[in-house]
Amino acid sequence: MSRTIAVLGGTGAEGFGLALRLAQARETVIIGSRDAKRAQDAADKIKQRAGANAKISGMENAVACAVADLIVLTVPFEGHATLLKQLKTAFRPGSIVVDATVPLASSVGGRATRTLGVWQGSAAQETAELLPSGVFVVAAFQNVGAEILNGEGPVECDVIVCSDDVEASKTVRELAAKIPGVRAIDGGKLENARILEQITALLIGLNIRHKGHSGIRITGLPPAAYTGR
Amino acid sequence: MSRTIAVLGGTGAEGFGLALRLAQARETVIIGSRDAKRAQDAADKIKQRAGANAKISGMENAVACAVADLIVLTVPFEGHATLLKQLKTAFRPGSIVVDATVPLASSVGGRATRTLGVWQGSAAQETAELLPSGVFVVAAFQNVGAEILNGEGPVECDVIVCSDDVEASKTVRELAAKIPGVRAIDGGKLENARILEQITALLIGLNIRHKGHSGIRITGLPPAAYTGR
Repeated sequence: MSRTIAVLGGTGAEGFGLALRLAQARETVIIGSRDAKRAQDAADKIKQRAGANAKISGMENAVACAVADLIVLTVPFEGHATLLKQLKTAFRPGSIVVDATVPLASSVGGRATRTLGVWQGSAAQETAELLPSGVFVVAAFQNVGAEILNGEGPVECDVIVCSDDVEASKTVRELAAKIPGVRAIDGGKLENARILEQITALLIGLNIRHKGHSGIRITGLPPAAYTGR
Repeated sequence: MSRTIAVLGGTGAEGFGLALRLAQARETVIIGSRDAKRAQDAADKIKQRAGANAKISGMENAVACAVADLIVLTVPFEGHATLLKQLKTAFRPGSIVVDATVPLASSVGGRATRTLGVWQGSAAQETAELLPSGVFVVAAFQNVGAEILNGEGPVECDVIVCSDDVEASKTVRELAAKIPGVRAIDGGKLENARILEQITALLIGLNIRHKGHSGIRITGLPPAAYTGR
């Protein structure tokens, strides 16, 4: 299957790490940024780590969005809604938007160990409201820390995937499971994204308190529940 | 150290399982219930499983509360505030109240995969508001399912412990870590309990969707972060 994945906010640590892992998994990846030059620089750095055969490039956000089949959002929450409004006409019908955004209170000068209340219930549900119809929204990757993604080792974290579209959820679970160490789990409807988003604030708190790079594993489910086990 | 632990709501599945595990860990445990007879019946059943030497008895809630050093709340959220108001004068200064309550929407006829918004931020913070001063509130055990506690095997779930009192938190972490399989982790202040409570709704959703008995493990922290590793 030939597909193109755009990582918007891919010059940030989280987006960079995710783009790196997806490029290492032989996916075709575009780093999206407000600044095409910065996006290209980040893509060059990923090429150095993932190898010369890595299919990675950099583009301005709207251009990246328009050519991609699957778009990952890793922008800070303070720029989240504004970016989606700007890009509204760039999304192609049938494309999948994977939202990894967490509404941390640090977006408005508060603590990264707390979240903001989002009227729609979660950042991912806000995304669903702002996107044109025909685009599928999937919540995933919130709990995988940037340091872990940018490290060399396997990612010791499960990725819980929430979406109102069963097929889009499956596509993203299969994608996530390509990252070594990741087990992807169907977390049900998009409304459950609010819990995934809050877990990130908990993990950030644990990282600060215990000086670690925490992740989560879900125990006690039958093997079939884990994609990429 | 001689101490008495009361499990209020200990005739319910979660409280029963927790009382069983604590009795098996050689703690002195009292099952608390509205009905002393039902409490005693539950205690007898635990004695059958934990052995004749198990220090387990059953009492009416207020009596159990008055003689205990550490009180665990495992009551459904619909009875949570009412019980605390009833017992207000029964709590002894210096005692520790461990709140495992989750404000599931099923308390008001909704789904157990969703939580209610609690004005104070979490059920545990509501508890802190309702208890007399001098009683220490600790949030813990929300994410350990009743089926797992009542099973025979080790508990494949970490217990994240949140409290505004450092010593009370440590006491509860050491207690939790006595349950085989449990690793207890300092989760910081009581306000973080809201995230633990929401994780339970997520786990219930995963249990229904995937037909399992799920729990969580936190990865990526240094060994010192885990009590009872």
